[in-house]
Amino acid sequence: MVTWNNLDTMDSYQELAKVTPVELTKVMAGESGAERVKKYSVPMAAGLAFNYASKQVDDKVLETLAKLADDTQLIEKFEALYNGEVINTGEKRMVLHHMTRGQLGNAVVADGADKRTFYIEQQKRISDLANKVHNGEITNAAGEKFTTVVQIGIGGSDLGPRAMYLALENWAKVNNTFKMEAKFISNVDPDDAAGVLNTIDVAHSLFVLVSKSGTTLETLTNESFVKDALKNAGLDASKHMIAVTSETSPLAKSDDYLAAFFMDDYIGGRYSSTSAVGGAVLSLAFGPEVFAQFLDGAAAADTTAKNKNILENPALLDALIGVYERNVLGYPTTAVLPYSQALSRFPAHLQQLDMESNGKSVNRFGEPINYVTGPVIFGEPGTNGQHSFYQLLHQGTDIVPLQFVGFKNNQMGRDVVIEDSTSQQKLCANVAAQIVAFACGKEDADRNKNFEGGRPSSIIIGEQLNPQSLGALLSHFENKVMFQGFVWNINSFDQEGVQLGKVLAKRVLAHETDGALKVYSDLLNI
Amino acid sequence: MVTWNNLDTMDSYQELAKVTPVELTKVMAGESGAERVKKYSVPMAAGLAFNYASKQVDDKVLETLAKLADDTQLIEKFEALYNGEVINTGEKRMVLHHMTRGQLGNAVVADGADKRTFYIEQQKRISDLANKVHNGEITNAAGEKFTTVVQIGIGGSDLGPRAMYLALENWAKVNNTFKMEAKFISNVDPDDAAGVLNTIDVAHSLFVLVSKSGTTLETLTNESFVKDALKNAGLDASKHMIAVTSETSPLAKSDDYLAAFFMDDYIGGRYSSTSAVGGAVLSLAFGPEVFAQFLDGAAAADTTAKNKNILENPALLDALIGVYERNVLGYPTTAVLPYSQALSRFPAHLQQLDMESNGKSVNRFGEPINYVTGPVIFGEPGTNGQHSFYQLLHQGTDIVPLQFVGFKNNQMGRDVVIEDSTSQQKLCANVAAQIVAFACGKEDADRNKNFEGGRPSSIIIGEQLNPQSLGALLSHFENKVMFQGFVWNINSFDQEGVQLGKVLAKRVLAHETDGALKVYSDLLNI
Repeated sequence: MVTWNNLDTMDSYQELAKVTPVELTKVMAGESGAERVKKYSVPMAAGLAFNYASKQVDDKVLETLAKLADDTQLIEKFEALYNGEVINTGEKRMVLHHMTRGQLGNAVVADGADKRTFYIEQQKRISDLANKVHNGEITNAAGEKFTTVVQIGIGGSDLGPRAMYLALENWAKVNNTFKMEAKFISNVDPDDAAGVLNTIDVAHSLFVLVSKSGTTLETLTNESFVKDALKNAGLDASKHMIAVTSETSPLAKSDDYLAAFFMDDYIGGRYSSTSAVGGAVLSLAFGPEVFAQFLDGAAAADTTAKNKNILENPALLDALIGVYERNVLGYPTTAVLPYSQALSRFPAHLQQLDMESNGKSVNRFGEPINYVTGPVIFGEPGTNGQHSFYQLLHQGTDIVPLQFVGFKNNQMGRDVVIEDSTSQQKLCANVAAQIVAFACGKEDADRNKNFEGGRPSSIIIGEQLNPQSLGALLSHFENKVMFQGFVWNINSFDQEGVQLGKVLAKRVLAHETDGALKVYSDLLNI
Repeated sequence: MVTWNNLDTMDSYQELAKVTPVELTKVMAGESGAERVKKYSVPMAAGLAFNYASKQVDDKVLETLAKLADDTQLIEKFEALYNGEVINTGEKRMVLHHMTRGQLGNAVVADGADKRTFYIEQQKRISDLANKVHNGEITNAAGEKFTTVVQIGIGGSDLGPRAMYLALENWAKVNNTFKMEAKFISNVDPDDAAGVLNTIDVAHSLFVLVSKSGTTLETLTNESFVKDALKNAGLDASKHMIAVTSETSPLAKSDDYLAAFFMDDYIGGRYSSTSAVGGAVLSLAFGPEVFAQFLDGAAAADTTAKNKNILENPALLDALIGVYERNVLGYPTTAVLPYSQALSRFPAHLQQLDMESNGKSVNRFGEPINYVTGPVIFGEPGTNGQHSFYQLLHQGTDIVPLQFVGFKNNQMGRDVVIEDSTSQQKLCANVAAQIVAFACGKEDADRNKNFEGGRPSSIIIGEQLNPQSLGALLSHFENKVMFQGFVWNINSFDQEGVQLGKVLAKRVLAHETDGALKVYSDLLNI
């Protein structure tokens, strides 16, 4: 049996606060630094490795973090989760996104079905549809192939699938698995839909409407926008649209769609990239085999996350180090910095994943807590960020822990040699250099050119960004966020904080406002 | 004469710390809230207005901030800047980006020329080139018109121009001023250039190489990448490339370019959107008239920033409120949340602008300071962010001050009515609702559904996002950041923090490393 207690009731947490923090400028210098880089590394799934040499840890800190992991029963809680316990207590739901890519424990039955079987069935149905679209069995009314897929969704139905699409777009092109271009419509701003519609040929476009409840305001509005465009082009909208929704939603059995694929209440939007939400658009864009490889990578990383030894469990270790940085060292933000242009929107996805999951101030029983929880997450790809906000990261007054990602090889194989090195080598040289610059700093008599160092980072290193390694990377962060939620004793799977804004917006549209809200509404001409 | 002193030596700063902070849940409720929204608003240039009713200020706080503005001589320092004093002390340079769009004070002569005349001359030369490209006087070797412009640049040569392009792309399309599609190559990751080249027709593409020094590693590497592609397509690269650089750079007089346009050392990359750096790509994409309107908007906002009365100077007021939030109230981050899909990359530009300018921990004389400076800046457009990280903003343990932007009208004119309101109305209703939800919160017996409120925000409201209002918006933030740098007594115009990484990366590529850097380099296969 697991027990749920607040972090500050744990002896190991009190102990952690008493451990002498590591000074990176000392331990990362010279031979000691070289030894740390060799030693503080743990293999991940799909050929990735998590290197935490430049984090403010040593054997003493790690030992205490291991105690904290035991005291807070993190692995047992993960077991409870994948065995179907109601972990999302606020909404009284199980949390089953791992099951979209594998069976980590017992069979879980809900809504009259074995859930693993259910998710596999949806993948199979998506695969069939995608194959038929690709081979021309399903076409537009003129009998022509669809060339473009447009996802209509917001939040988890947008950021994750979009980030994954961008991550694999060029990989698929050079590996001859690129089937259809994908576009995304998300914002209720009408210029978003109109802008996307301006760039596509609707007659050859298939739209994927994604809304679990079937009631998401932005998504239904954009659907209507798209239907108008199809109608104006003389097309039958129902032959151009598929739905991804829950079986109980109004969209599930509607004749308005060519087909409907199902997700359920056990998968939160931000955890849905491996469900039908990501499955439909990614299978259409790249083929079902590529999506299957992506799931394989995630499944392998999930298995790694079951390991009780924190030194062999990268997601668990990353989570614990993050808690140490947040609650003991007091750093309020974390930057995600992938040295891969293909991961340009991966930080935006992690921003949702992390901040929506762990931006909470009550514990899982709804009681106030006395410690900080999820940090602010932001990031852009390197080397771009180096020419932008890295100035503050190096010389600002606050310390921002950093999460680097780098790959030995690029995706497209094209490269150029300038000054005796390829662009890929320059890219990798830059990330290596940054880690050391942040950790070690450099003294300069001109204090304007002085680097204090002591700025912690970790790096995930892979051979290449491909479907498997992308799946493993995604799973790593999903599980990291989950473990941190367990440590903080919060519910990482609801999002009550988004409700009040929705209620007030409805009131504005119904002209049922007073006070400040009325004046703001007037100023905005509503 | 202005005198430069640290913030913590100012009496008004000490006084500010003693003022009782405003409780938003109280003052923003009921009639008091309505009064605040009406009262705490200041007109900006180009029809914009800055509303700060939901910031934690009242007349007492504002009065103290006004004293601080006087004590720190903010307007006098701005005067010194635009009159050509060497404000960038680290690099011993004047700071003249305002002069690219107007003459705020005295004539400034440097490098043997009147600088205003010089900037106008560059704009004129760009305008001539753009007109010739558009009317077919300048074509490719086959005599066909160029259809695409590709900017090759990084940092300030990328983020600002890219954000401005995206902000006006759809506006230009519906206003029949859209001339050429623009693309951007920035990252040294070879997949960035290869990915962009995959999507364009090089035979009809004009490339704009942007590097002030003419030595930026990423940019020269990507230039070489592009030249290979042109050569492989049997094209003469020198007929497809223009340069934007300084007159002293190796690119300035090279035969490798169709033309070269000049910027100079008095304009930092992050302040260069209104110089030739933004001018070339934006004039080619939208026509010189649109770029001129953009400059007009910025010039008008610059003039507003000269006002000594903080209640009539939105950039100054915004800056001072930000300092209050950062140094007195202790908030370490700020989110920028434009309710406009066209501003999707505006937060990324502001992230550079703000964090690279003010992420410093020594004063302008290179002496350590004892207070925090620039915050972490992040953001995404609404309503997208509402379905992502807003959970943490509403219910997380840390308070994040918010900067909203909203427009009464959309850019493209197309809209759809669902449930009795247009998408544009829904968009505006959401931003109004969010401001009030953040400020006022809402009590709930179920603490998981409880909103504490007290989360400060401001909003900039405009009629429509167009070239003028975009210019005014850009200038607002440039001047805000400048004023904050003055308050903190730091140099907002250098970026020494980016140097160490460059030095170490070169060492890695030359295989001249030891210790941790060598092991990291080995792990990354360099």
